This record gives sequence, structure tokens and C-alpha cells, in this order.
Amino acid sequence: MSLLKVLFVLVTIAAACAGVCNGGVTSSFVRKSQPSTCMPIDTFPPPPGYNAPEQVHITQGDHDGKSMIISWVTPLEREPNYVIFWEANSKNKHKIHSRITSYRYYTYESGYIHHATIKGLKHDTLYNYQLGTGDAVRRFSFTTPPKVGPDVPYTFGDLGQTYDSNETFEHYYSNPKGQAVLFAGDLSYADDHPYHNNNRWDSWGRFVEKSMAYQPWIWTVGNHEIDFAPELGENVPFKPYMHRYRVPYKASKSTSPLWYSIKRASAYIILLSSYSAYGKYTPQYNWLEQELPKVNRAETPWLIVLLHSPWYNSNNYHYMEGESMRVMFESWFVEHKVDIVFAGHVHSYERTDRFSNVRYNITNELSTPVKDPSAPVYITIGDGGNQEGLANNFSEPQPSYSAFREASYGHGMLDIKNRTHAHFTWHRNHDNEPVAADSHWMLNRYWHPEEENN
Amino acid sequence: MSLLKVLFVLVTIAAACAGVCNGGVTSSFVRKSQPSTCMPIDTFPPPPGYNAPEQVHITQGDHDGKSMIISWVTPLEREPNYVIFWEANSKNKHKIHSRITSYRYYTYESGYIHHATIKGLKHDTLYNYQLGTGDAVRRFSFTTPPKVGPDVPYTFGDLGQTYDSNETFEHYYSNPKGQAVLFAGDLSYADDHPYHNNNRWDSWGRFVEKSMAYQPWIWTVGNHEIDFAPELGENVPFKPYMHRYRVPYKASKSTSPLWYSIKRASAYIILLSSYSAYGKYTPQYNWLEQELPKVNRAETPWLIVLLHSPWYNSNNYHYMEGESMRVMFESWFVEHKVDIVFAGHVHSYERTDRFSNVRYNITNELSTPVKDPSAPVYITIGDGGNQEGLANNFSEPQPSYSAFREASYGHGMLDIKNRTHAHFTWHRNHDNEPVAADSHWMLNRYWHPEEENN
Repeated sequence: MSLLKVLFVLVTIAAACAGVCNGGVTSSFVRKSQPSTCMPIDTFPPPPGYNAPEQVHITQGDHDGKSMIISWVTPLEREPNYVIFWEANSKNKHKIHSRITSYRYYTYESGYIHHATIKGLKHDTLYNYQLGTGDAVRRFSFTTPPKVGPDVPYTFGDLGQTYDSNETFEHYYSNPKGQAVLFAGDLSYADDHPYHNNNRWDSWGRFVEKSMAYQPWIWTVGNHEIDFAPELGENVPFKPYMHRYRVPYKASKSTSPLWYSIKRASAYIILLSSYSAYGKYTPQYNWLEQELPKVNRAETPWLIVLLHSPWYNSNNYHYMEGESMRVMFESWFVEHKVDIVFAGHVHSYERTDRFSNVRYNITNELSTPVKDPSAPVYITIGDGGNQEGLANNFSEPQPSYSAFREASYGHGMLDIKNRTHAHFTWHRNHDNEPVAADSHWMLNRYWHPEEENN
Repeated sequence: MSLLKVLFVLVTIAAACAGVCNGGVTSSFVRKSQPSTCMPIDTFPPPPGYNAPEQVHITQGDHDGKSMIISWVTPLEREPNYVIFWEANSKNKHKIHSRITSYRYYTYESGYIHHATIKGLKHDTLYNYQLGTGDAVRRFSFTTPPKVGPDVPYTFGDLGQTYDSNETFEHYYSNPKGQAVLFAGDLSYADDHPYHNNNRWDSWGRFVEKSMAYQPWIWTVGNHEIDFAPELGENVPFKPYMHRYRVPYKASKSTSPLWYSIKRASAYIILLSSYSAYGKYTPQYNWLEQELPKVNRAETPWLIVLLHSPWYNSNNYHYMEGESMRVMFESWFVEHKVDIVFAGHVHSYERTDRFSNVRYNITNELSTPVKDPSAPVYITIGDGGNQEGLANNFSEPQPSYSAFREASYGHGMLDIKNRTHAHFTWHRNHDNEPVAADSHWMLNRYWHPEEENN
């Protein structure tokens, strides 16, 4: 705990320096604010070999981590339509066939998109897997998570949108600590290109493969996944995303891939959709209402929620866009003592203190966020970098709920130590990886609901 | 205008009597509050004749009232699959074929559901139409609306949910003034029956036929249309409703039947879905954002919105359920000077003064509704009567925005006189029809935005 003390001192000093900001810190770090330039589409060419499998990505395939969904694209032919996998310390190979889908979007025609679910994996085990045949064989590997349990340490990488963020992605990739990625939406940004050029979904898939093929990314959807374009005759929201990315939503009794949950090590992770219906009586509302009481904190002490559009964001960019969803669900998060909410969307970094705003009843005027030890810490990490540039337009004065904010690109790491303590760090791209531009000890709301460092 | 003056005096007296209520009136009328009893399913048997068309209903079929969608069910065979229609003062008959759909819901199998769109109708004209053959011929009629124009008088009936509300429905039906019905959702309440017994959709369709076959009902969806029942394997929201009820959504460039608009006489009517996504970037949000600026008040002075879950409701029943949608859209309604918003859902009647609540920015504490001459009047008319009983549990004191409220069953009538004046009355079932338990002169927000009677 000596590190905790040191951090406490550091943060106390920072807070003292920022007295005018109600105790919150607006980082003085200034980075160039021009938009990232868009990488040429051929920056990530297909792998060599005829019909070589590409855009390989994996995600957890069940509720508790004994299954993996392997996805890839074959550009020219449906076959080979299987994955071969084996324990790294064994020679017993297994074969699983994929389900294949494809889609058209305006004038674009996708390749053959394969999804294969491997079940019955051992916990905490290194597996190799192989795709393709002939001169196009490609090999990858992944490590399954440890068995779910309350004191199982685990490290999640936390990324917001990554398109054009070669720098952020490389920065995360260079950090060997992450065992899985929590990704708060906005994947390819194909919709920013003319006619939602879906070739950009392909190039993005190649771009992130070197991480996504080796450690599971846990996705929720952002606005850039909607791809709703009636002017192109494309009226089905999330069409490219739903074909390309699969999640184990049925394992948590969800009826849609857009909201679901998984358990991993000591964490229970709930993924919500900011862009689906969440009004009372709707499927997502009904599901979440039944889901939250199911979380067994004796098994998974850490209750984490991912959603795209932040509820607590003091940047003028996308300000209050998450308000309508906050109004529906915030009281549940407080009641069930959610530990952390990760959001994306805003192209800067922000971390709140534990505040809630759940007293308002329209006529009582109690609409101000107040300190609340049962409230989550809200972390906006939508700073992976994108074409829209940085959002360096913070509202002043810094609201009381905002503990730290900075308009830089970067990524987060959540290092869960045991049932009571987790260490969160945020790494701006400009720095070398070991430096944490912001760091914070999280105390578990269920097992150790004491006040943190403010 | 002498009537206006009389009403002004009456309302002034009422307000004076209710000083403790911030000027609003909580009606002292007390009606028995026990739930309506559910009508036996065979109360409305099918019409006589083999395969006789039943559950006939009509709605406007285009944007400006020259088209009608005729819908019906044939229980046993697909044919006859056409409607014959003619002008009442002509012998020229025309034939239009239907599109047929059907669906399964759990163990229920629907009959053949026909939808036929008649186009190119003359305005303000009585038409007859005929369905069925042999001993099962049935004849109905409707009158098309007058040509759209700024001073065209027109009378809308305004109903909330009607299931089990034989009394409300008969009451409306006995009122010969209504030319079309604005219906704020919750049709059959089939979902309140075991396994969402879809036979209740059929019996409700027979029940309302004697109005719905003769004047167009303009629908939006309520929570009882969702029929989302994963426990029955029924995961597609709005499945029965979408098969049974058709609306001309494409005419207003909507991509979903759940939100759309029509013009009728001097009114522009926007219908929204409380139970679909409405967050920023979603289809409904994008559509409404583009729709509101299109309204030409020189052509249709009266801008009316229908949605199910009320934004301003001082009943503790369903209190604040509409809050999340209000947060998204209220500022647009004020900006575009919507005249009236009709909602349902709550089983009582309430009318607001012109109030808005659009200043709040999370940190400024300005979250109280305030008088706003650009705001709509909100009318909650979800009092058609249902199994759940009356909602006679008003919050006290009556909030400042609430002008009149009463926990009775009834229906409303909106009598548009010209571009500046419309007269709204609310009729409780207990009274004889000519008596208006609440009445209010509406002054058009675009053409005559003066303060009304408060």
C-alpha cells in the first residue's frame, strides 16, 4: 500500500494546485490539436497467399471465459472455413468450422466473414490456432483467462476509438501488461468516408489484427457503428458491425448483440448500447433491470459498465449527449454500486470522482451532481484519436464531479489486484509507456466502499 | 370570441378556487377507481358469413390525405384479397388488391391480414367501399379530408388507450363531431393476457371496427404494442402491431413505421415512438431533426405531436417515465413552436400551461419548468380506461406547469377553427357528451402566439 500513499500525496498536491477548479485537475499538458491525418487505405494490405484469412479478431465466447469466438475474412472463396487449435504444450489438434456471413452495403460487397466459436477451453492456458491453407496458412495464439473468482488479478486495456490512431494503438500494443481490451465503441470510422466506404472496415480490421488476433477485445457499439444511411438505401442500423463482430450475448440472456455481459477473472462487465432504445419497457431496459441483481459480488467483486456516450463529460464536445440515458439508468448504477463506467465518444480523457445525480424529481430543483460513495467512477477514454481531432474545449469552471481531464490521445490500463483494490492508469501517447499521466487507486464499492483519494 | 371570454372568466374562477395548487386545477370529481373488468373474448364475435372480412380499419395513406390504407383480416382463406370502392355519388367502381401478411406468435397463428392502399382520392368526398364476397359482403364508407390549407377547419378526436373501455369508445363514437382520431398508443392490451394471447388483438380489432372502418385513426405506439416476450421466444418488438397496422411512413421519408408524419386539413401531425431509440445519431433522432424544419406553417399552421409516454405528468403513476425522451427533444419542440403534444400511458387526464424546461446544463441548477410562450400545451389523455384501473394518485402540491388534472375516463376533441384558434375539450365518460369537463382555447404558436387563459 505504500504506492497508494505516494499517489495520495501526489493527488493531494495536484488538487491543491487546482483550487479554482473545485478540486478537479485540468491538465496543463498541451498537444497539437490538428486532426490526425487519415491513413491511406493501402497502409494495411491483405496478407500474402491466395485467399489468405485476414482481419482476424477474437472475443470471449461465453459468460465465464471458457470459450472464444474466432472471426476472420476470406476475400475470394468460402473455404477454408475452419480453425485448427491446440494447447501450446500439446500436439492434440482440434478443428472447428465457422459460420459464414457476408453483406452488401451500397455498392460494396464484403468478403466471406467467418465466425467460429471454440468451446470447452481450459482456464489460464495458452492456445495456438491456425487459419488458412497452402501458402496462406496463418498462426496466432491466445491465453484464456483464469477461472472466475473474487481475488483473481487481471489487467484490462481500456481503449476508445482507434481509427487513424496508429499512435494510440501502437502505444497500447507496446504495453505488454494488458490481457484483454475493453473497447468503448467507434471501430473503423468507415462512415466518415464517402458512401460509408466499407473497404475501410476491411483496412481497419487488418490494422488492429496484431492485437485483436491475440487477445480478446470486448466491444460495445459507438455512433460510428450505426452506419445508418437512408440516402444510400441503407436503413438497417449496425449492419456492417453486426456482420463483422460477434459477441456472446445469448450467454447473458440478452436478445441483442448490442447489450450483453461477460465475467472475466474478478470482473463482471456489462456492455450497453447508447444508440438502441433504453426507455422503460424496451428490451435493453428490461434486460438491464434483470441483469444487475444477478451480479454476485462474492464471485466477481468488480462491476464494470461500458457504454459509448459518456454521462459525465465536462467537454463542450458532445456535452450532455449521454444525458437521456443517464436519466434512465443512473439510479440503478448507484443502487447496485457499479465500480467503474467506461465511455468513449469524446476525444479527450476525463475521470470523475464518485458523484451521482439521482435526486431530481422535476419540481424539487435537486438536479446538481453530489458526492456519493455508492456512485461509479466515470472514465471517458474516447481519446484513441480520430479524424475529427482532439476535443480541447473544456467547460469552465471545471465541474465539481470532474477529477482529472486532459485533451490528449492515450489509453488506459485497469489493473485489478484483488477484491478490494484496482489500479487505474492513463497513458498519453506523447509519453513513454511507463509514465502514467493520471493514476488512481479504485476501492471496490462492495467490499471496500471507503472514500478514495479526494 | 365571446365564447373565449366566457371561458376565460370560468378558468379564472377555477384558478382562484385552487390557489394552493399554484393556479392549477385538480378536479374534485371523484369516480369509482376499481379496474375495468375485462370483457370476455367472445363479446365481439366475427361477422357472419364464410371467411367474412373482419377487424376493418383505415388510416391515412399518404402525406396529404389523398390516399387511404384499408386493412382487414380474412380468417380462413387468403381470398377475396381486394377492396372495391366508389364515390358515393357515382357508380364507377374501382378494385384494389391487398398485400397479405400473417404471423405466428408463440402458439397463436394469425388470419390473413390484408392491407390495400387506395390512391388518388378526391378531397372532401364521401366514398363507399366493400369487402368480401357471397354471403360475407360488408360495406363501409369514409370521407376524405379537405385539401390541406391554413384555415381549413377540422375536428380530431383524441383518445388514449381503449382496451376494455367500451364506455370511452362508445362515448367517443356517440360524438358525431370527430372526423379522424389521434390515438396515442396502447391498442389491444393483448400483452396483459396469458402468453400475450393474440386472440385479444383480433377481438379488439372487432370491437373498434365500427369507428375505425369509417374514419381514419392515426396511430402511434404504446408500451402495450411492444409484445416483447423472450420467455415465449418472441424477441422482435412490435411484431403483432407491425403486421396488423400500417402507416404511410415512407411518405415522410421515415425509415420505420414507428415514427412518421402526416398533414390533414390545417394540421401537421408528427408521431413519435417512446419505445424506440431516440438518442443522438439514431434513426428516429435524425428523422425528427430533419422533419421539424420542413413544417410549413403557412400551409399547416397547427403543429401537433403524438407520443405515448408523457413528458409532463404530475401523476405518480408512470411519473417521469418520459423524462429521458424529453431531455432529447424538448428544446426542438420549443424552437419549432409545437402547438400541442398529446400523450397517453397514464390513466388520467392532464393539461399543462405553456411551460418548458430546456435551460438545464447539469451545473447551472436551472432544472425547473418555467412559463414559455413558445412551448407546447401537453395533454395527457391516456384515460381511455384499461384493466390497470384509474391513476388517482396525483403528486401534491400540483406542479406549476399543470393547469388541469382529473382521474377520470374520457376522451378529447380538438376543433381547429382557423390558423389562429382551436378549441380543445375533454369529455369525461360520466357526463353526457355535450358537457366538457375541461375546455381550452388554443392560440396558434406561429400565427397568434399570445398568452392563453392563464
